[in-house]
Amino acid sequence: MYPKSFNLLVEALETLPGVGNKTAQRYAFNLLEKDQDEIKMLIESLIAIQNITPCPSCGFLCDGEKCDICSDDSRDKTKIMVIAYPQDLVAVEKTGQYRGLYHVLNGVISSSKGVYPEDININSLLNRLEGVNEVILAISPTMDGEMTALYLDKLLKDKNVLTTRLAHGLPMGASLDYADDMTLIKALMNRHKIED
Amino acid sequence: MYPKSFNLLVEALETLPGVGNKTAQRYAFNLLEKDQDEIKMLIESLIAIQNITPCPSCGFLCDGEKCDICSDDSRDKTKIMVIAYPQDLVAVEKTGQYRGLYHVLNGVISSSKGVYPEDININSLLNRLEGVNEVILAISPTMDGEMTALYLDKLLKDKNVLTTRLAHGLPMGASLDYADDMTLIKALMNRHKIED
Repeated sequence: MYPKSFNLLVEALETLPGVGNKTAQRYAFNLLEKDQDEIKMLIESLIAIQNITPCPSCGFLCDGEKCDICSDDSRDKTKIMVIAYPQDLVAVEKTGQYRGLYHVLNGVISSSKGVYPEDININSLLNRLEGVNEVILAISPTMDGEMTALYLDKLLKDKNVLTTRLAHGLPMGASLDYADDMTLIKALMNRHKIED
Repeated sequence: MYPKSFNLLVEALETLPGVGNKTAQRYAFNLLEKDQDEIKMLIESLIAIQNITPCPSCGFLCDGEKCDICSDDSRDKTKIMVIAYPQDLVAVEKTGQYRGLYHVLNGVISSSKGVYPEDININSLLNRLEGVNEVILAISPTMDGEMTALYLDKLLKDKNVLTTRLAHGLPMGASLDYADDMTLIKALMNRHKIED
């Protein structure tokens, strides 16, 4: 019943993750009501993101030769933090506690989803190890994430770098009786002396 | 941390209804992964919908002179169904049981939201009544919807047309003990003899 262009827009919006027909229609009606400038801004940003490529050095999003972090001379180039997704980098940067470099895998090894080591950004990590003395594996501790971390740990074993992992334990502010068994076991295993 | 164009896209997506920063980022990452053809289709439909205007006759979406229904000569031009939103038209059309014309208000009168009769597509309804013998008020029975229906009923009183409303009652397949009081009262009031 709707004009053809409207249906095409709904169809395009339906391809977004978690968006069904009803939501796509809701978005489309909202877009119909927006003024020209807003639509123009959306279109322009859609065109512009097509120039975004993975940074050839670290794999993070970048629209130039290198990403902002790789081209920042003030960063500590002796440390590389390996993360699975670009969002993880932003989460770590927000803490303001890490000044080293990153390496974004853009995925994790997953036997169930058929993702193999060569499908993600692992090889280029090995070419970045000169002058690096610590590789921090900061991959989310899911099943596939653990697998990926183990694989990387093995790969880095004879590369003369210290490999570390983020600590597991209770999240700050969490309630003990809501913690899952695995987290509680890790928190107990990694307990430490209270420092004065 | 993200490239500027990426942030602009996230900002534009955040203006969609019910979309917060996390969801907008999720959409933006998904759009980053799409191939050029898909993005092209999205951009083209965004450009094309800017030609969609309310049909000058009935108020439904149309990208030409008149909408598909108004320009369909096979429709029964003696009946007009008044609905609040274009989506309602599609819902009624799906039933295949109505062959008359429509009139889309594109809103409802709402004192709480400051929507007055002149803000919605009411005036043009009065100019369409020649040759019409029934106006069906099919506005959703919300508080504002009821108010709008009452207003229209009053307006149409001296126009020599039959004004009808959709029946209220239990939805098909509904469970009696889950029905709200108002629906149950209406269903009881409008009870009818079982026909053989």
